[in-house]
Amino acid sequence: MADGVRAAVLGASGYAGGELLRLLAGHPSIEITVVAGRDAAGSTVAGSHPHLSALPSSSLVIEAIDTDAIASRADLVFSALPNGVSSTVVPALLGAGATVIDLSGDFRLEAAAYPEWYGFDHPAPAWLDEAVYGLPELFAERIAGAKLVANPGCYPTPVVLGCAPLLASGLIDGPIRVDGKTGLSGAGRARTDATLFTATEESIRPYRIPGHQHTPEMERALTLASGRAAAVVFTPHLVPTVRGVVTTSYATLGRGATTDALTACLAAAYAGCAFIRTLPPGGMVDSKRTRGTNVVELQAVADPRTGTAIVIGALDNLIKGAAGQAIQNANLVHGWPETTALPTIAVYP
Amino acid sequence: MADGVRAAVLGASGYAGGELLRLLAGHPSIEITVVAGRDAAGSTVAGSHPHLSALPSSSLVIEAIDTDAIASRADLVFSALPNGVSSTVVPALLGAGATVIDLSGDFRLEAAAYPEWYGFDHPAPAWLDEAVYGLPELFAERIAGAKLVANPGCYPTPVVLGCAPLLASGLIDGPIRVDGKTGLSGAGRARTDATLFTATEESIRPYRIPGHQHTPEMERALTLASGRAAAVVFTPHLVPTVRGVVTTSYATLGRGATTDALTACLAAAYAGCAFIRTLPPGGMVDSKRTRGTNVVELQAVADPRTGTAIVIGALDNLIKGAAGQAIQNANLVHGWPETTALPTIAVYP
Amino acid sequence: MADGVRAAVLGASGYAGGELLRLLAGHPSIEITVVAGRDAAGSTVAGSHPHLSALPSSSLVIEAIDTDAIASRADLVFSALPNGVSSTVVPALLGAGATVIDLSGDFRLEAAAYPEWYGFDHPAPAWLDEAVYGLPELFAERIAGAKLVANPGCYPTPVVLGCAPLLASGLIDGPIRVDGKTGLSGAGRARTDATLFTATEESIRPYRIPGHQHTPEMERALTLASGRAAAVVFTPHLVPTVRGVVTTSYATLGRGATTDALTACLAAAYAGCAFIRTLPPGGMVDSKRTRGTNVVELQAVADPRTGTAIVIGALDNLIKGAAGQAIQNANLVHGWPETTALPTIAVYP
Amino acid sequence: MADGVRAAVLGASGYAGGELLRLLAGHPSIEITVVAGRDAAGSTVAGSHPHLSALPSSSLVIEAIDTDAIASRADLVFSALPNGVSSTVVPALLGAGATVIDLSGDFRLEAAAYPEWYGFDHPAPAWLDEAVYGLPELFAERIAGAKLVANPGCYPTPVVLGCAPLLASGLIDGPIRVDGKTGLSGAGRARTDATLFTATEESIRPYRIPGHQHTPEMERALTLASGRAAAVVFTPHLVPTVRGVVTTSYATLGRGATTDALTACLAAAYAGCAFIRTLPPGGMVDSKRTRGTNVVELQAVADPRTGTAIVIGALDNLIKGAAGQAIQNANLVHGWPETTALPTIAVYP
Repeated sequence: MADGVRAAVLGASGYAGGELLRLLAGHPSIEITVVAGRDAAGSTVAGSHPHLSALPSSSLVIEAIDTDAIASRADLVFSALPNGVSSTVVPALLGAGATVIDLSGDFRLEAAAYPEWYGFDHPAPAWLDEAVYGLPELFAERIAGAKLVANPGCYPTPVVLGCAPLLASGLIDGPIRVDGKTGLSGAGRARTDATLFTATEESIRPYRIPGHQHTPEMERALTLASGRAAAVVFTPHLVPTVRGVVTTSYATLGRGATTDALTACLAAAYAGCAFIRTLPPGGMVDSKRTRGTNVVELQAVADPRTGTAIVIGALDNLIKGAAGQAIQNANLVHGWPETTALPTIAVYP
Repeated sequence: MADGVRAAVLGASGYAGGELLRLLAGHPSIEITVVAGRDAAGSTVAGSHPHLSALPSSSLVIEAIDTDAIASRADLVFSALPNGVSSTVVPALLGAGATVIDLSGDFRLEAAAYPEWYGFDHPAPAWLDEAVYGLPELFAERIAGAKLVANPGCYPTPVVLGCAPLLASGLIDGPIRVDGKTGLSGAGRARTDATLFTATEESIRPYRIPGHQHTPEMERALTLASGRAAAVVFTPHLVPTVRGVVTTSYATLGRGATTDALTACLAAAYAGCAFIRTLPPGGMVDSKRTRGTNVVELQAVADPRTGTAIVIGALDNLIKGAAGQAIQNANLVHGWPETTALPTIAVYP
Repeated sequence: MADGVRAAVLGASGYAGGELLRLLAGHPSIEITVVAGRDAAGSTVAGSHPHLSALPSSSLVIEAIDTDAIASRADLVFSALPNGVSSTVVPALLGAGATVIDLSGDFRLEAAAYPEWYGFDHPAPAWLDEAVYGLPELFAERIAGAKLVANPGCYPTPVVLGCAPLLASGLIDGPIRVDGKTGLSGAGRARTDATLFTATEESIRPYRIPGHQHTPEMERALTLASGRAAAVVFTPHLVPTVRGVVTTSYATLGRGATTDALTACLAAAYAGCAFIRTLPPGGMVDSKRTRGTNVVELQAVADPRTGTAIVIGALDNLIKGAAGQAIQNANLVHGWPETTALPTIAVYP
Repeated sequence: MADGVRAAVLGASGYAGGELLRLLAGHPSIEITVVAGRDAAGSTVAGSHPHLSALPSSSLVIEAIDTDAIASRADLVFSALPNGVSSTVVPALLGAGATVIDLSGDFRLEAAAYPEWYGFDHPAPAWLDEAVYGLPELFAERIAGAKLVANPGCYPTPVVLGCAPLLASGLIDGPIRVDGKTGLSGAGRARTDATLFTATEESIRPYRIPGHQHTPEMERALTLASGRAAAVVFTPHLVPTVRGVVTTSYATLGRGATTDALTACLAAAYAGCAFIRTLPPGGMVDSKRTRGTNVVELQAVADPRTGTAIVIGALDNLIKGAAGQAIQNANLVHGWPETTALPTIAVYP
């Protein structure tokens, strides 16, 4: 470990930060040298994450964010800072020579999209051109050696993985109507009326329609991956789970396309991918089987009656939808085996 | 009460049966004289439903189903028997002069649809022409005085209520892609691997795609209500709640249609309807607010970017999606006030 | 309704306040004329409680607390203000002639107990002697006509109801070790790390050991009801439900006492009590069956092997443990039928 | 792996069997050569446990139980067969030379206790004398080299770990009243009315009072570990979690014993134990922090007011309460590092 890559985790007190620290503890080539954040600066990792108290990193003190201090002690930075904050911190880290895997939405879009979808003007648009969209199963070659990786959002990951090959092959066409369901950990540790147990149990709640900021990310990544444009509309829903995202995407079915053809296309696209599990026709996707893992379950069904393709994806939003995918990207950046430190077997039930 | 209409509840041991018994206990014009069923015959109502032990009906013994015996002691029959069973029992009851509110799917479709969607040949197709589809807010006039009411399914109720006025007015066009989310009580008391607590907590699971039997019901009822045909594809999902259905329907937005226009159309269609709550733009539907009530929350949003209308509905599947709507239908059949014995205020949180 | 008793609800924006408003809407002799509170002053009832939007009271504006203004427009005040706040407001209301049902802990103990158990010096100790402890099944005679009723806590209610008759009859002796389990609504709408869905699902957490403020309330009420002193130690636990309290009390079994004797004692003590359901030996208490009702389930089991009596109680903490019991007390104060506006049948499942 | 110990897992289709297979996949010295069971014989491991489909063992076919066939291909047998079944299978395996870790209750008591507490006459009482009670933190020396280890129950594990050192040191005395709370996975995959999601959500249910079969196990193990007899009465409760057991034990506090003294005693007893986390006074036990791990959280509090010691323990019933502890025992039997293949960090939240 003494000669591992020195890594910093920013946003260390949040849920994604906690998962980064937990998973990185099992990474043979990474040494955590800095933990930093805005909310819990001054407390230890164990103070924010009592469940991590057995980890070596648990006694580290979360530092206030000082980019010079961080860059001098870390070569690789995982930033799990909030949207709108990360882009004020990351450029200085990059300028000081660090490699950055950014888990926020701040480097996933073109500059022009930020005012409408995120509500701010991007403070460092030049870096947007340098950022590589970090969906490893589709963009592994670009990720290798990248300086700045924009780690995808939890909803776009299953949507783009499921729809891009089908779009590229002409089996489906847009527009794509995406219906998302998520557990509460997607909201992080925010303490609001909406995140209380009392408000959440027995509640199914659509939210932020039709303006969720993951919409343009899906469109851009689908185009990038498939070479074809596809308009996306997206309706997310809160359901009473902690983890788990399921996306159900409705697209126009290509002429003559069958469930078998859709399934075969996905299977071929992800042959050899350790984290993609394509379900056969008749299989049943279950987000619970992905919990705690970096796995995505995919399934595609043709409904010729209505000319509809239904493309389903499921993942653990904190792992494949955040911390796990970030580590997968770091593995690709450094040329380590892609699966290093990433679980594939759920703790079930 | 002594001179109330004599009513029988069939399928009394199930969840819908229990809700019928609970709600009917507060109905001033109905007297429960018979409870019957297949599974729990010989036990008391309280044996199947300990939470009802304070009701007068709790000491009634659930009888085996004998249509003559039932028809001789009841003028109004609520049948909550399973799909495929109800149609073997209801015709004899009708023939003996009873009025029937049937909660199964057995009288909602045309005869030709049963083999494909329900897996059986309909045993009494002549009665299908007599059956009135019991969606009170749309078909009140036909329901008044009907002998056989086909009580709608839990998923079709919010879909048809939400989409029919928009379709009729030309604000939306088909095909309609319906994404449904439901709690576990929709599966009744079935004891399967899928209905266990251990399998359900932390699980989001799409199922029965694209062949759910509520699909043709939605198509038929939409046509009936709007005068226009619309193909429907439907993807239901299990989420970890007991009650609650939310349907999110994606349709093609009519040219120039806005969220305000959609909202105004729904508000006008259901002005004066005690059980419909149309949410304004920006409001957030929450199934939890409908729990224990006969209320449907509706909302419609236009996404001109993709030419999509998003139509959302939420209800309690055991009340407005089953027992409550059945009582609402009985009220209309008999000319009683439509809201008799039907709650509108949820027990929250 | 025009000639009903004019009532105010203080703390109207909280969960207990919401339940008071919901249940009082069905009370034929009470008219809600004032809603007031600290947190949501200026908003409407529907703003704080969207699920109540169909109630007449939903358009009332929550007022800041002005005791003169309240007392001039209300004869009966339900105070669901927090511990330590209610006692600064209630005396002025009493002084102005109002009758008060106080749901806080501020009038349940002797003055000397407040610094240790509640952390404040009582601001109006003279009123403590006037306050009647409002456990209707045990103190109905004192409650009739009272000016100030101290509505019991959610945990003490089942403990005292279960243990007092057994203690009085000598079937059990102290000390009594009380193990409590509660859902999250007991914490009200507090937004803390501990009340988040993410922290609560899959979590069983004992808390505040051994200093929970309901401990001296149990001791005092048991003594008052049984004529015998009994020391109590109490360990509450949070479990992932919204509603529901179950208390399991361990006492020393009287010589020769049997399960049948314990059961018979409870059955006799509460014969004719509409809200007490004493379970027979072998029955299984279930908090879910009390949800939304004013019912308490009680059960007592003798374990002669260890000389232990196990006394179990279950209730809905927001109804029989708060708002419902408060209305039951108001009914007794005014001589109305005790069960007015109080449900006994749960919405299940 | 080729030269690992050959191991069989019996009861492979259940939850404990699934956890054994998951955890053993990470064990460097064990090779799974046989999976067998009663319920799912003929199907593959992946058929019973889809979440394990990425494991090498997932393609193994679950065999019917043939003791000769098993013993010829496995040197170490983990039996997760049901109570009353394991004791009909294990003796033949032992006779054929296998080492057995038995997860049932069939080898934990004296023969005389089985009729009363388990409802059957023990078929192989001679083996009861050979069985070592497998609570590693207390009996490591006996476990090393044992042929038959009786793996402790989920409830007795935290009770005995928490109370034995305090009893041995005279800080507490019996009788011990144990209040247990458990999630639903403790019931395994049983499909009953009680294990449905609909019955479990919003439900707190005491059960099997006072005759739960873990009662005599607690008594026997406490005596064995402390050298002192202590009568135990036990009241388990179902709460709506999948995993997690919390036990709250009420004992008589030794004269002058303080919370600090109790805490120090536990800390000293388990110094150096990798899986025991003793919480300081004021700390809050949380079962969620043990989920997926082999960790037990312990805490002890003195209440001098009532002369009560409160001893709390929490664990994951499928890991430290079943499969994890079984592997820990196997590690001790074979002289491997005790922590091999056993996680200590929870996946949280």
